[in-house]
Amino acid sequence: MTFQQPTQRGECERMDQLDPLAEFRDRFSLPDGVIYLDGNSLGAMPAGAAQSIGEVVSAQWGSGLIRSWNRAGWVHWPRELGAGIARLVGAQDDEVIVADSTSVNLFKLAAGALALAQQRSPGRRVILSEEGNFPTDLYVAQGIAKTAAGGCEVRLVGEGKLAEAFRDDVALALVTQVDYRSGRLHDMAQLNARARQAGVQIVWDLSHSAGALPLHLGRDGAQLAVGCGYKYLNGGPGAPAFAYVAKPLQADFPMPLAGWFGHSNPFAFAQQFLPAAGIERFQCGTPPILSLAGLRCGLATFDGVDLQLVRAKSLALSALFLHLVEAQCAGMGFRCISPRDPDARGSQLSFAHPHAWPIMQAIIDRGVIGDFRQPDLLRFGFTPLYQRYTDIWDAVAILREVMLSSAWDDARYRARNIVT
Amino acid sequence: MTFQQPTQRGECERMDQLDPLAEFRDRFSLPDGVIYLDGNSLGAMPAGAAQSIGEVVSAQWGSGLIRSWNRAGWVHWPRELGAGIARLVGAQDDEVIVADSTSVNLFKLAAGALALAQQRSPGRRVILSEEGNFPTDLYVAQGIAKTAAGGCEVRLVGEGKLAEAFRDDVALALVTQVDYRSGRLHDMAQLNARARQAGVQIVWDLSHSAGALPLHLGRDGAQLAVGCGYKYLNGGPGAPAFAYVAKPLQADFPMPLAGWFGHSNPFAFAQQFLPAAGIERFQCGTPPILSLAGLRCGLATFDGVDLQLVRAKSLALSALFLHLVEAQCAGMGFRCISPRDPDARGSQLSFAHPHAWPIMQAIIDRGVIGDFRQPDLLRFGFTPLYQRYTDIWDAVAILREVMLSSAWDDARYRARNIVT
Repeated sequence: MTFQQPTQRGECERMDQLDPLAEFRDRFSLPDGVIYLDGNSLGAMPAGAAQSIGEVVSAQWGSGLIRSWNRAGWVHWPRELGAGIARLVGAQDDEVIVADSTSVNLFKLAAGALALAQQRSPGRRVILSEEGNFPTDLYVAQGIAKTAAGGCEVRLVGEGKLAEAFRDDVALALVTQVDYRSGRLHDMAQLNARARQAGVQIVWDLSHSAGALPLHLGRDGAQLAVGCGYKYLNGGPGAPAFAYVAKPLQADFPMPLAGWFGHSNPFAFAQQFLPAAGIERFQCGTPPILSLAGLRCGLATFDGVDLQLVRAKSLALSALFLHLVEAQCAGMGFRCISPRDPDARGSQLSFAHPHAWPIMQAIIDRGVIGDFRQPDLLRFGFTPLYQRYTDIWDAVAILREVMLSSAWDDARYRARNIVT
Repeated sequence: MTFQQPTQRGECERMDQLDPLAEFRDRFSLPDGVIYLDGNSLGAMPAGAAQSIGEVVSAQWGSGLIRSWNRAGWVHWPRELGAGIARLVGAQDDEVIVADSTSVNLFKLAAGALALAQQRSPGRRVILSEEGNFPTDLYVAQGIAKTAAGGCEVRLVGEGKLAEAFRDDVALALVTQVDYRSGRLHDMAQLNARARQAGVQIVWDLSHSAGALPLHLGRDGAQLAVGCGYKYLNGGPGAPAFAYVAKPLQADFPMPLAGWFGHSNPFAFAQQFLPAAGIERFQCGTPPILSLAGLRCGLATFDGVDLQLVRAKSLALSALFLHLVEAQCAGMGFRCISPRDPDARGSQLSFAHPHAWPIMQAIIDRGVIGDFRQPDLLRFGFTPLYQRYTDIWDAVAILREVMLSSAWDDARYRARNIVT
């Protein structure tokens, strides 16, 4: 960023006043005394969530009972919420379904893509991925490799080495668009073009990009993707995930997880599995309604939101954070491991520090919530719908204070553990 | 049942007064004007559910944010709720985990059991099941058959024919303990003994038995089982399911769905999947906390409940219902297709009737909620924690009234659809 960064808190106040997204902060309920920089791990709670979910519990479950599958439309929620996500990721309404977890959806799409590739060319038996990919993506691939009918090998390459590894024996690549540690952003259109030329199918993991920046799955040639409901989509802890399958691939896609909600007519109770014609076939079991109610609240926070503005503010927030850390915490041992080029990163920044763990605990205890990632990273996420420029200013001021006072060097921070 | 059935409503009132389980009805919130005979499809709402789930939303998600994975113990809920279910099904605390849906858990255990069987004897390539098994069980088997590494065939046999079909080529049998249509109950100990002799692994589906009657998985020799959280366990619509794996099978069980919550140390973010030593390995993705909060409420309805009393009352309620239908609706075309021997059925009764569909709609409109199952069944479930003997009396009185008045023969009931 080439413009002048603020040197006083008052300038951040002025930026908040001018912020076209400022009003959206009211859509969230944030606790007092907290600056939340971890929406990339668990999105903040939408303001009406407790009431809205409470009504699903009391009125729909409690009073409606079994009738709510029809009367409250529960049976359609996976499609409806999928359509809501489709609009955020540049897909058609009938190309996204909400179901299961990210891990289970990865399994569905990766196992199916492998089977499909091997039908066409049996020599393609490699699942390609990056060494630093999120563990569950790697574990799912390893699980498939152990059980795949035609045999399968998982091959890992270094960051940025995917395209050159698209060789004849590669069936598919599991690619997370935004790296969970560094925040590095893949160029989706470019990688899809390279994959298409090489006959490789990419299964995209959008867990750290959906809701964080504008996506154009259709335009950019993506065919298969999954993503997480509880990070930037604000769907609540462990919210159901989504699966995207481009229309032309849906009908013949070999779904390894055949369950009754993926049947063309679940309530016919037929003996033979006949998958639904469209995106519904990517469901498996009965949808988890209470968790879907949370995701419904999360998606509502995006109503009328321009994701171009979200992206612009995300980059402004992260540039400000980076500038302030480097200006105010100079010489304190922080090393930014995220790309400095804003176009090359998602909506987060990570800093390596030899005392990353206790430092993160100390700032969390002072209300600045980011997270620690192995082995030595402090990670901060930027969520423009509910963060202010003053929050960034204040967060770095607290970080500086913790460093100057050595508050992190405390026995309290030596035996605890915190999770994603 | 040989004792005298009531001939007047007052006798049912007296039975309610004497009922040792009567007090437990207060643990539920049931709508006025409804007699709920569908707890076998979706359990009624526990009285404190809206408040309890609301607190998880507001306090734990809203205020605690990411910190609640540790502070509120979210990370341990799958184990804790699993231990709660273990006590209801006669398993050890560390043999049951709550995760995913019944369908996904069926896949995990059946695909794993198939792989295990084929490691030991490659000739065992058949998944056996009953023709009338619940569709998702059959669909999961069909999905596995399409993708299994060693090849696999699904073989279906008629009701009661499982044991004689335990042949040398059978790897495993998918057996639902209580049939979702007829309510017929398998003798678990006996079938397990036959299977063990024949070298066949049974994967039990307890969806219609867990919480409905006392189970003794360990004593009765069960090694693998799954079950549903939203029926008799009262966990809320689409509540997460559970998986049971007997301790000796856990360590070497080949889990085909490897995800980060099944790792021995998820937050080490290791590149290589190293499954947890115990029952935790049967998790896959991030657990759906809001839905787990519902299941927590459901399991709390069983605190201090003696399942022997539940079973005794269930049989008394169903015997009363059967008696009243046959006495008061004689000659109206109802034919009970459930076993007349109470020891041979679960906690439900089904009646065939050529007009089953509109009759069910008509009684639902009058507040008696059972359900319709293809092709011609009216199905009624008995849930002793919240049903009264007078409810049974009143339900049959309404059924009789609907039949006598031909209220079911109405255009309103010709174009609707209702789901499980």
